[in-house]
Formats: sequence, structure tokens, C-alpha cells
Amino acid sequence: MGPGPSDVHPRILEAMSRPTIGHLDPLFIEMMEQTKSMLQYAFQTENPLTMPVSAPGSAGMETCFANLVEPGDKVIVCQNGVFGGRMKENVERCGGTPLMIEDEWGRAVDPQKLEDALKANPDAKIVAFVHAETSTGAQSDAAELVALAHQHDCLTIVDAVTSLGGTPVKVDEWDIDAIYSGTQKCLSCTPGLSPISFNKRALEKVRNRQSTVQSWFLDLNLVMGYWGSGTKRAYHHTAPINALYGLHEALRILEAEGLENAWARHRRMHNALKAGLEAMGLSFVVDEAHRLPQLNAVTIPEGVDDAAVRNRLLNEFNLEIGAGLGALAGKVWRIGLMGHAARAENVLLCVSALEAVLNERGAPINSGVALSAVQKVLAAR
Amino acid sequence: MGPGPSDVHPRILEAMSRPTIGHLDPLFIEMMEQTKSMLQYAFQTENPLTMPVSAPGSAGMETCFANLVEPGDKVIVCQNGVFGGRMKENVERCGGTPLMIEDEWGRAVDPQKLEDALKANPDAKIVAFVHAETSTGAQSDAAELVALAHQHDCLTIVDAVTSLGGTPVKVDEWDIDAIYSGTQKCLSCTPGLSPISFNKRALEKVRNRQSTVQSWFLDLNLVMGYWGSGTKRAYHHTAPINALYGLHEALRILEAEGLENAWARHRRMHNALKAGLEAMGLSFVVDEAHRLPQLNAVTIPEGVDDAAVRNRLLNEFNLEIGAGLGALAGKVWRIGLMGHAARAENVLLCVSALEAVLNERGAPINSGVALSAVQKVLAAR
Repeated sequence: MGPGPSDVHPRILEAMSRPTIGHLDPLFIEMMEQTKSMLQYAFQTENPLTMPVSAPGSAGMETCFANLVEPGDKVIVCQNGVFGGRMKENVERCGGTPLMIEDEWGRAVDPQKLEDALKANPDAKIVAFVHAETSTGAQSDAAELVALAHQHDCLTIVDAVTSLGGTPVKVDEWDIDAIYSGTQKCLSCTPGLSPISFNKRALEKVRNRQSTVQSWFLDLNLVMGYWGSGTKRAYHHTAPINALYGLHEALRILEAEGLENAWARHRRMHNALKAGLEAMGLSFVVDEAHRLPQLNAVTIPEGVDDAAVRNRLLNEFNLEIGAGLGALAGKVWRIGLMGHAARAENVLLCVSALEAVLNERGAPINSGVALSAVQKVLAAR
Repeated sequence: MGPGPSDVHPRILEAMSRPTIGHLDPLFIEMMEQTKSMLQYAFQTENPLTMPVSAPGSAGMETCFANLVEPGDKVIVCQNGVFGGRMKENVERCGGTPLMIEDEWGRAVDPQKLEDALKANPDAKIVAFVHAETSTGAQSDAAELVALAHQHDCLTIVDAVTSLGGTPVKVDEWDIDAIYSGTQKCLSCTPGLSPISFNKRALEKVRNRQSTVQSWFLDLNLVMGYWGSGTKRAYHHTAPINALYGLHEALRILEAEGLENAWARHRRMHNALKAGLEAMGLSFVVDEAHRLPQLNAVTIPEGVDDAAVRNRLLNEFNLEIGAGLGALAGKVWRIGLMGHAARAENVLLCVSALEAVLNERGAPINSGVALSAVQKVLAAR
């Protein structure tokens, strides 16, 4: 129950161990087509360029920036946590000029600040932001931010690593140009792949670049020769076959449950966890309106040893929760309810184990009330 | 029995399906240490910077070039197949100037040509070449090429994707500066990871770069914060946990067999396969002295339909062999004997299935003699 990798569904683990076939085997190519189509469903898009990058989420981020940013491009990056900072690094390494719009960690990106920046920088080409900040658990209003960017003729790059599959992500309805995610969060899959989707506008920019994409491995002009359509595929790199078996199975599970049901399950489990933690007296970092159900950042009570509590949870109860990152290191715990981890038994375990460990360490919490608060939410269905 | 992904050992497939734990879990960090140490054995090196890149071999190649080539650097690339061409692309995309030394496809790199180029270009900074060309099955003399490069103060980047685990690769003895490989060839593991090793000289160059590494994901200055030594690891990207379980198991299998024994097994199976194919009347692309045991490129007999034969082998006998790449497309088949695939039953299946299919299509081969030729080699042990 950390910030990911989340619990992997047993069906996905089983899929990972199936015999490896060739990356150009007709059966595998059929599986690639199914994977793309199920990813379109997950992203709620009809973008033909919807596929998994053969490396973790950070490489998905780099795929978006390396393909869309050209040397000299001004890119507005909205930062409200660790991953906005990583976006800045990406812009710089692509030869672009990042223009940072900062919001406090734990808050949503402020649309007003973005609008001001867009007005002040009519030469900006791209707006980038994190939809769901894994470092804080804050969710920003992607639809509104994208609409603002488009009013000022900017393309958009959106980080949906933690949101995809857990909370609504509607690529077509929100008109997102380029988006990336990860497999190890709400898709319940193993880490190692990064689903991306590019719309027509973004693809046009890739195709009409003045300069070559600086990464050979991530150049979509080449990758599309392998992941594109048709039965004839050109070898680009050797696809991570077994990891793709896992993603395929994860998407089948998502499709069977239904996206809306998956979102509702994450919300319900979050409400139960929240009831328990708040009954104990713990407080959330992010205000309720912008809180992600799947990533719960709670403030560590005064005087409590961060690492000691996490180690005890891991060693005694086989339960991992996440540490704070960056500005929040040592100040918060991040409790994930992602994908297959978002289950009632996990909420119970987490609340009861945390209560036990905090009591052991004499932390000032309310004891004996959390579990009934959890049960009340779960019974209300 | 294609050019990779090769047959994956069942123990490795089983390892892939073990429960996913966190990328900062102390148990996982212990496993990372073991993996690094077993990779040092596989590469025959004591380089502390020996680790798997979290993406396929092409990303391992890019890791070497992106970290070692700075804008303006002149890089001598020895090309004798597809992958030398990919090296050229990498140099260009890093802002370097590639200087191509060409050898015919199927031949080893000619040391004389390299020496001439080094003399003519005293400002060259790096020499790059492919130790084992997967597109042709030709092996070059890495020790000699590296020695020449060092005489002229050049660093070396060596592609060992197809050689590692199948044929001698001696990083320290040959004094290779930077090397990359893949997991899906002679390590018998699933595709998706790229083991690399950098010596002190190469690491110094990375640390003293004038410019930032253009890839955030592959920047070793950052990656080493996670893969470096000590028990305290900084999060960089989320490691592909289950793929790393697979590699760990693959390296345990290699260690148990012993590198020398693995090399000998590849050689023996190659001799058996060669006896069978030659008895049938097929001929090899590469001359005997430079032939890789694990990658057998044979000329397609006159008038035989390349794709039809490969499809029939796949659909009737569940046997994949590889097509030709680049200049050799349609002209050769590439038969892999890599890692767990290098077994007597596979040699028998390949020779007998190929004989059956070629006979069906009326190809001009010698019938009824191949199997006894194979058996003679196998019995000679």
C-alpha cells in the first residue's frame, strides 16, 4: 500500500510467467492490437497512437518531452510536487526553456496562475502539468488547464501516472494532446511499462519537427513502425514480451470490471480509509476537494519516527506504506489504494496495523475508534 | 530459435510471477546487490558500475552513448551489420560526429581499417563496435580493437547483446570501457533489461562532462543514486521489479552452470547444428573463424520462399527462426542457439523440421543425411 508498485493481481503475475514468444510473432502482434485498443478504453480516447513505451513511467514522460519539445521551445511547467520538477529537467535536457508556475506542494495547480503565465508568454509552445501528483496526492483540474493552454495555442503534456484507472482520465473529452502513465499504479500491473497516448495535433508536431528527436529509443517516428497499425511490423527494439503479457491481462481485468466501477471502488475504499485515519486523529495533507482517492498523504504525528513506523509495519505486518518525497520527506506517509490494492481487507489491515504501531510508540492518537469508523463506511453501500 | 528473444528457462518464468515488492524494500535492495555481483561475474569484471538498465538492449546502447558522447565529439563507429548503423544514429542524436569504418556484412571488423582511421583522426574520442553482430552472426576481436583504441587515447563502447553468456566476454582482461548487453539472448531471460558495465575511465568521463546528459531517464549520474552501493538508495525511477526477479534467476542459473561450461555448451550445439545444416547442403554467411556459435546465419537456397518456410516452421512445428535484417533481408535465415535454447533436442528439431519443410517445397537439398551428421557430433563428447 505504498505509492506504487501496488499490489499486483494474481492473474497478472500468472500472465507474466507464460512462455515468451517472438516480438514479431503474428500471435504477439494480435496481442499488441488488443493491448492498444484496451489502452484506448482506459484513456477514454480514440487516438490511434496509444501504446505502451517499453520502459517505466519516467521513460513515458521522456517520450512526451523528447518528441514534442524542440530546442528553443518555451514550455510552461506547472509544478506542485516532485514530478513537475522532473518535467522541468526534461524540458531543459531537450534544449527547451522551462517557465515554472509554482504551487504549494499538496495543492492543485492554480488555473489563474497558468492563465497569467500564458498571457505573459505568448511565445510559449507547450503547457505541461501533473494530473495526479504521486508525491502529495493532489489532483488538478486537467480539463480546465488544457482548455486554457489551447486558448493560447499551446500543446499539452499531462502526467497521469497515478490517475489512470483510479480516477477519471478522459483524454478525448478533455482534449489532452499527449499523456503518459505507468503500469504499476491503478492498473495493478508490475512496473516497467508506460502507456502513452498522442492526439492528431501532437502527432503532427512530432512528424513536422525541424530537428531529429534526440533519443533513438524513444523516437515515436521509429517506434510507430513497430507499434503502428497493419500486420507488417518493422523491428525497432525487442519488446518486453512478458511484461506486455502482464499489461494485457491487467487491461482485461479493468475492462471486465468497467472503468466507472473501478473509479467508484477507489473512491469507496478511500472513504473508508479516510474515516479510519481521521477517527484516529490523523490529518490529510491535501484539502478534500483535490484529494486523490488512490494516494493518501497523511501528516506524521508530532514526535513520531517516520522510518521506525514504516519498518515496523513492513516487518511485523508485511505492509508497505510510502515515505514522503522531496519537500515532504519525513513529514508525511503516502498510503496507496491503487488498483488491486484498493480492497476492504487492505483498508482494515492498514488502519489496524497503523493504530497498533502508533500505540506501541506512544503517539497521541485516538485508540479503539478507527475500525468502527471504517466499517460504517463499508456497510453504507 | 530466432535471434532472440530466446527460449526462457522455466525457472526464470516462474521467478517472473513472484509477488511484486517495493523498489526500495530492503529485501529488494539485497537482491539488487546480488544481481550486480552476478552480472560482474557474467561480464568478467570488477567494475562497481555494473547493473541492468530498466529497458531493452537498445536503451542500454543509448545509455552508453548518451553518457559518454558530448556534443562535437568525434566517434569512430565500426559497422559490419545493422547494429553498427544504430550506433551511428546514437552518435548523431547525441550531437557527436560519427566516422564510419565499414566492413562487409557477415565479416568481422577489420582492425587494420580501425588503425588507419585512428591515425587519420587523432581528435577522435571514442571507438564503438559490435562484438557479436546479431544481424549476421559475425564475431569481432574485441580485445584487439580495444587495444588499438587505447593506443590512440580513445574510450571504447562495445555491443555485447548477443555475446554475453554465449561466447567469451572479458571486460577487465580486454579493458573494455563501456559495454551493454540484453537479457533475452544467451542469458535466456525475457526481453526488457539491458545489463551494462562502465570502468573507472568511462565513469570519470561521465562525471566530468561539460554538458548535461540529454536523457534524464538514462543519466548514470542519477541512476547510480538508486543502483549504487550502500543500503540507502534514492528513488530515481520505479524499477521493473518482476523483470529483475527474472534476471536474478537467470544469473543464478548461469553461475550454477559456470560461464566456461555455458560457452562450451553453445559451441557444442553449434557444431552439431552446423554438421546437420552443412550435410543438407546449406552454407553459412560468416567464415568459420568469425562465426558466433549462438547466431547461425545461413543462406536461403536459390528459389526458396523465405517467409513461407518460416511460417510453416512456426505453424506446423512451433519453431521460430529469424529472418534476415537490412542488407541480408530475404537472403538469410538466422538460427539462434542462445542460452536455454542451446540444447540437443532443439538442434534435432531444427534440422529435421527444416529438412522436412525444404523437401515439401522441392528445394535442392541433400535429404536423409543431416540427422546422422548431428548425432555424430553429439556422440563425440
